[in-house]
Amino acid sequence: MFQNDTIAAIATGMTNSGIGIIRISGEGAFDVIDRIYQSKKGKKVLSEQPSHTVHYGMIVDGDHIIDEVLVLMMKGPNSYTAEDTVEIDTHGGSYVMQRILDTVIKNGARLAQPGEFTKRAFLNGRIDLSQAESVMDVISAKNEFALSNSVNHLQGALYEKIKNLREMILHETAFIESALDDPEHYSLDSYPQQLSLIVDKLINNTQKLIKTAANGKILSEGITTVIVGKPNAGKSSLLNALIGEEKAIVTDIAGTTRDVLEQQLRLDGLILNLIDTAGIRQTVDTVEKIGVDRAIASVDKADLIIFLVDGSIPLEEEDIKILEYIKDKKVICILNKSDLDFVVSKEDILKYLDAPVISISAKKQEGIDSLSSYIKDMFIRKEIDYNDEVFITNARHEQALRDTLSSLELVKSSIEQNMPEDFFSIDLMNAYDSLGNIIGESTSEDLVDEIFSKFCMGK
Amino acid sequence: MFQNDTIAAIATGMTNSGIGIIRISGEGAFDVIDRIYQSKKGKKVLSEQPSHTVHYGMIVDGDHIIDEVLVLMMKGPNSYTAEDTVEIDTHGGSYVMQRILDTVIKNGARLAQPGEFTKRAFLNGRIDLSQAESVMDVISAKNEFALSNSVNHLQGALYEKIKNLREMILHETAFIESALDDPEHYSLDSYPQQLSLIVDKLINNTQKLIKTAANGKILSEGITTVIVGKPNAGKSSLLNALIGEEKAIVTDIAGTTRDVLEQQLRLDGLILNLIDTAGIRQTVDTVEKIGVDRAIASVDKADLIIFLVDGSIPLEEEDIKILEYIKDKKVICILNKSDLDFVVSKEDILKYLDAPVISISAKKQEGIDSLSSYIKDMFIRKEIDYNDEVFITNARHEQALRDTLSSLELVKSSIEQNMPEDFFSIDLMNAYDSLGNIIGESTSEDLVDEIFSKFCMGK
Repeated sequence: MFQNDTIAAIATGMTNSGIGIIRISGEGAFDVIDRIYQSKKGKKVLSEQPSHTVHYGMIVDGDHIIDEVLVLMMKGPNSYTAEDTVEIDTHGGSYVMQRILDTVIKNGARLAQPGEFTKRAFLNGRIDLSQAESVMDVISAKNEFALSNSVNHLQGALYEKIKNLREMILHETAFIESALDDPEHYSLDSYPQQLSLIVDKLINNTQKLIKTAANGKILSEGITTVIVGKPNAGKSSLLNALIGEEKAIVTDIAGTTRDVLEQQLRLDGLILNLIDTAGIRQTVDTVEKIGVDRAIASVDKADLIIFLVDGSIPLEEEDIKILEYIKDKKVICILNKSDLDFVVSKEDILKYLDAPVISISAKKQEGIDSLSSYIKDMFIRKEIDYNDEVFITNARHEQALRDTLSSLELVKSSIEQNMPEDFFSIDLMNAYDSLGNIIGESTSEDLVDEIFSKFCMGK
Repeated sequence: MFQNDTIAAIATGMTNSGIGIIRISGEGAFDVIDRIYQSKKGKKVLSEQPSHTVHYGMIVDGDHIIDEVLVLMMKGPNSYTAEDTVEIDTHGGSYVMQRILDTVIKNGARLAQPGEFTKRAFLNGRIDLSQAESVMDVISAKNEFALSNSVNHLQGALYEKIKNLREMILHETAFIESALDDPEHYSLDSYPQQLSLIVDKLINNTQKLIKTAANGKILSEGITTVIVGKPNAGKSSLLNALIGEEKAIVTDIAGTTRDVLEQQLRLDGLILNLIDTAGIRQTVDTVEKIGVDRAIASVDKADLIIFLVDGSIPLEEEDIKILEYIKDKKVICILNKSDLDFVVSKEDILKYLDAPVISISAKKQEGIDSLSSYIKDMFIRKEIDYNDEVFITNARHEQALRDTLSSLELVKSSIEQNMPEDFFSIDLMNAYDSLGNIIGESTSEDLVDEIFSKFCMGK
């Protein structure tokens, strides 16, 4: 049973910083703050203040002042959780935040589970499950595409698409039911032909969404990339050329784990996540040292391998070994040093590898601009127009869409095999339920719990 | 020249979390938010909203929606900086926070310097310099004493004391000036005796404040402690006894540097910072391995050395070496294994060391409770009552008080030497200025800049 007892958590990062927030939600949230808030001048009872107001004052534990704070009061249902909600803006120190949280808990709240605020927003009907899931995607977004797509989901774009598909299905099943119940008033003559067209449309729309998943993943998460090649093939120069001259941007983004930095290279809208790197400087050094062993260890984790060959000297045993190891992967081969006379030809490479081969001069920064278009060809499905589209980036959603597609294809084949109409109904309802899973309308409590358990604290 | 142009910064920790805050302050803060805020329904102009209200909506960059947010509007002077201030509560992801900050800057703000918000609160006269400095102390507070004392400063407790002392001084200098200017109406007969009493009072109050500094540092920052002794002297058992049975609490507190954890042992209101430890478990292992070399390397950094001796076996060469090395430090010697027959006596130790010697049985957990009272004797000035006291914890404040004291002592000796009254004035005014330094009333711009440059971003 869902109870809106009062929950609390620290909602900001736990590193020392200017401001920290302790969030309280539930039917007792205002009681809790009344017990521990004291205004600077005179007596002010926060629960009596208008919703969406901010109050300067102190958090006290009995007579003891803990900190000066701002308190935000938001009355349900106009709040994140749709419940009475209080946010305490305090100083962003680990101890003071924890101390205030302890005081909040001592005065009637309990510690929130990870994701419990968002779970309540979902259970209270303010947002659907796809919106709830997009909250964590917004937080973990590492680039413009990922942010923009997840905010789009947050605003209900996926929900709208799914709702429309479900309405179409429900309309048909309702008609079939009615016709079977009341054959005098509803005729099913020529209905299968009609339904067939509708199912085609449903299949088409579902497939379109599924197709966005590959691009969605690539565009939002980036392409895990490793650059391999013998020492002195020119990897440092390549990286420098990509970073310096091609307007590629190298950024450090703090990952979800505190101590992990991801190295990202932005290249013409694409993100290359360079692996085996703990800083691009280090990469440059490390890459120089990559030999066969190193390549073997890293290519398995990669979506893309950039194999760099010094075209000015003949292929050596080491090159051949690497070529043989990577031949079944997604590879782009770069013949470097086109400023010198080439002794290695495209054909020499193609003997071992079915992959694009590009000639460049990293030193003279020639030929590098074609790299991003080759990568786009390999990873981006061109038929997907990514203006205003909803992209599927969540594996759970993709699976639910595939389940929907299977059910719809069963309907289609039932129609083709002239099966009785109630066969259509069963599979249509399965498709309906699979779609419902995405927005949380036919989702089991266990699955809901599992989804929110992956959230961060305080969200 | 101080200009209140519009500044902005991310004010929360940059680790991914539920909520992130971008703070904007200055005369253009409301213009900036008007340009980038869009309400969910209808048109709402935030600059026209009442102060201290919260608004749900979206941050947009042109037509592009960046995130759903809450916006807090606070009109100066009723804000942190005393200027028009906007806080944007967004999702706590590194990218989205940075993206919103970029948009804020693109629309008319500039990136704030570290501490610039608090600096403005000071320059705008909302708080004095001692309150401003306490902001960082609140954030870095790692225990109840440190938090409580810095919030006390934040609320102006030190300011009040300093202001009172300055008023007393100013009253006297004003009288001396008047008397020298207008000897007909003001008589300086018997004034030196009167002033002498007042200066005694000033000296006494200043000394009292200076005396709190030692305790303040110890209580807020803890005592850097190292436990040395031969392997098998029983260090693990001692630590376990302190942690397990004496209600000592071991906590991990994230330091200012992200990757550093401090190990703290709380013991009867005192905090022992155990050095050379990267986790208490590791300590236990490490301590067991500490020999002479290790001890020598670590004792120099320590405020307190706990020297542990196995009392059941004779002192060995290794013990003697350690004893000789630590004899000039603050040491407490613990004779462990009092459950066995002692062959080492207190006197054996006192031959090498002038320090308290305590007999304990770590194994049977006997005798350990006296440890904290010995430590208190060594570190806490008993004459300081720490109820309701203002403790000096800032080295800059302590130095200014010492300067004040020197000037006051000069006044005292001028009186004793029957110097002319204008001599009193000069030193009284020096004392007045030194006190003014604490609260920022006679502080140079460079010093102010230096103080705030040590702040964190967004504060």
